[in-house]
Amino acid sequence: MARIVQKYGGTSVGTVERIRAVAERIKASYDEGNEVVVVVSARSGVTNALVARAKSLNPDPDEREMDMLLSVGEQETIALMAMALHSLGVPAVSRTGSQAGVITDNSHTKARILRVEGGDIPQLLSERKVVIVAGFQGVNIAGQISTLGRGGSDLSAVAMAAGLNADVCQIYTDVEGVFTADPRIVNEAVKLDEVSYDEMLELASMGSKVMQARAVEFAKKYKVTFEVRSSFNNKPGTVVKEEVDSMENVLVRGVAVDKSQTLVVVSDLPDEPGTAAKLFDALAEANIMVDMIVQNIGREGRANMTFTIPKDDALKAEGVVNRVFKNIGGSLTSSTDIAKLSVVGVGMRSHSGVAAALFKTLAEGGINIKLISTSEIKISVAIDFEHADLGSQLVHKAFQLEKAGG
Amino acid sequence: MARIVQKYGGTSVGTVERIRAVAERIKASYDEGNEVVVVVSARSGVTNALVARAKSLNPDPDEREMDMLLSVGEQETIALMAMALHSLGVPAVSRTGSQAGVITDNSHTKARILRVEGGDIPQLLSERKVVIVAGFQGVNIAGQISTLGRGGSDLSAVAMAAGLNADVCQIYTDVEGVFTADPRIVNEAVKLDEVSYDEMLELASMGSKVMQARAVEFAKKYKVTFEVRSSFNNKPGTVVKEEVDSMENVLVRGVAVDKSQTLVVVSDLPDEPGTAAKLFDALAEANIMVDMIVQNIGREGRANMTFTIPKDDALKAEGVVNRVFKNIGGSLTSSTDIAKLSVVGVGMRSHSGVAAALFKTLAEGGINIKLISTSEIKISVAIDFEHADLGSQLVHKAFQLEKAGG
Repeated sequence: MARIVQKYGGTSVGTVERIRAVAERIKASYDEGNEVVVVVSARSGVTNALVARAKSLNPDPDEREMDMLLSVGEQETIALMAMALHSLGVPAVSRTGSQAGVITDNSHTKARILRVEGGDIPQLLSERKVVIVAGFQGVNIAGQISTLGRGGSDLSAVAMAAGLNADVCQIYTDVEGVFTADPRIVNEAVKLDEVSYDEMLELASMGSKVMQARAVEFAKKYKVTFEVRSSFNNKPGTVVKEEVDSMENVLVRGVAVDKSQTLVVVSDLPDEPGTAAKLFDALAEANIMVDMIVQNIGREGRANMTFTIPKDDALKAEGVVNRVFKNIGGSLTSSTDIAKLSVVGVGMRSHSGVAAALFKTLAEGGINIKLISTSEIKISVAIDFEHADLGSQLVHKAFQLEKAGG
Repeated sequence: MARIVQKYGGTSVGTVERIRAVAERIKASYDEGNEVVVVVSARSGVTNALVARAKSLNPDPDEREMDMLLSVGEQETIALMAMALHSLGVPAVSRTGSQAGVITDNSHTKARILRVEGGDIPQLLSERKVVIVAGFQGVNIAGQISTLGRGGSDLSAVAMAAGLNADVCQIYTDVEGVFTADPRIVNEAVKLDEVSYDEMLELASMGSKVMQARAVEFAKKYKVTFEVRSSFNNKPGTVVKEEVDSMENVLVRGVAVDKSQTLVVVSDLPDEPGTAAKLFDALAEANIMVDMIVQNIGREGRANMTFTIPKDDALKAEGVVNRVFKNIGGSLTSSTDIAKLSVVGVGMRSHSGVAAALFKTLAEGGINIKLISTSEIKISVAIDFEHADLGSQLVHKAFQLEKAGG
């Protein structure tokens, strides 16, 4: 018998049929004698429809009212899920985020969880009830409904597992776990049995859109081990947990590709203190997230700067840098969509040679590297957009990642 | 300056365009310097869609979960309405029933309001904010979300007006007020400027489906004067209030017709104590609401009984009475759809002659009366279904109701 927190996302509860299927799955866990707490999202499409309705009334809706509005999506799901469980003979009760004691700070639409008090959930579990909790939402110190922002239901589940001292936290999703690479691109990609929080963060933020980073960071902070697994079959997924020594034996855990970025090259900037600050301050003010940055010296003591930004912001960024150039000089040399390819693994920390092996593999494949950035457990390179898939395949093979799974 | 509670039903807030129109109307009240609290229903169709989804998962959904589910309809509307007001520059905040301190008993799906505490609404009003409150819902003593049942938003508005000591309570609906008769049937029907609670109750329960009886009863109990008026124009509506002396000068306030009933005649029942009890106990057990009842003596000391029931229950009722006949004897003579025509007015209390005038009018029109029942302020007759409209027109004319309006 274990105390289990399960989380089901919007696709898993998108229709009445899927809600019924999830209810069967919950029943199976319950029938094994477990204490089961289930965190659910709004049915897929519901949140977008609510946002659209809000925007048609007010292009810039108040954030407190937005939370009041959006929280209804999850509230609908918890009631329906409880009813579906009742029809299977499982005693279930629903709880809103507020009733479950998910206490957040006072910011709206992207509130931070301060603590999970749990409300009467422990009591309900001891009465052998399944408790269905609305994900994505909480109540702030001012007593108002708050929501947690994108991917908030994952965060709710992890926080609930921490607050209730759950033995197991299962994130059910539409993928089977974390893979060594995108299986649609690399045929040999295999599912990983386990990864560390940091590896998960690097892999997830790289386009393996399994889970939002915030939930992983929260899990890391509170040492919540969780499993990412499919809601459509019964296969074990990937366990995400604290780093253990044996993880260091694996040099590279996976290869991730992010195709959403544009590489901007600017040149002829004054090579003096403050240049970079002026440029990147202006971009930050325009709310443009800059990812990789490299600076080097060009002709006649002028500096060149190369950086990547989200593709969608490319036009806006051109406007920003051109305004900066008017003040300090400089020119926009080029702006090209690229792919960012990363290899990730905590084992890299104690081994050199990964970078060299990566560069060699790409060179042999005729793939040119435009930019390099590294962190303790990751090496990323910007390459031509059209080389993204080939690059993944070559790197996956070179590091023998097909042997990395279970 | 006055403290005003306004209520808008599901049709009035059914679409984004209508929400915007209602927001304009609220702004107008606010701009006059009034303190404005607005109670809204779910957008029309939302509640039915939620119920359908619930029933497809569970034909007999748990009532607590039903309340959790249905309360989202109003919660959506309050947020959207607040956003619409913001876009007009009106500072507005939404409050759920729970936040507004609508405290109910612990029964679900048809909870009774115990009191309205108001939450921070007085404070918000003093800050010159418009407060949008979710109708139809409250929170029970156990801390769970409850709903008030059919017509609950009218009840919310009246209770809110009582709890906040409002000066004015306006129920906006899709009719212009209470009429002397159904204007679709009687061309000369006029809108009444004012009626007493009891008259409203009799008229409303008779097919002038302006408002649910529970809300009127609550208003009567707490002496809340309210006005029923159209949300589609600016005409004054009908004020419903405590009886005042001048009301007695009007003999008949209006004529109402209920076309939903069937007249059942049973005969040859034993004329002994307990016969009626056996028959009507059996009907009550089958959940059949009996309205008018008349008993008289037939041949050879056997009794006849005539009564009316809802048309929809006619078949079920035949089964019930036939089962009773097996025990005590008796036979079903006939079962015919009828119309129940009623004249209503508090002035009747102190005047005789209304009944006689009614019977004479119908007789001159060739309309046969099958059953008569009377109360202090109402005389009802059962007539042939096909005479309903003609009966209304004749009675309206006879009592000169076209002069009864404002």
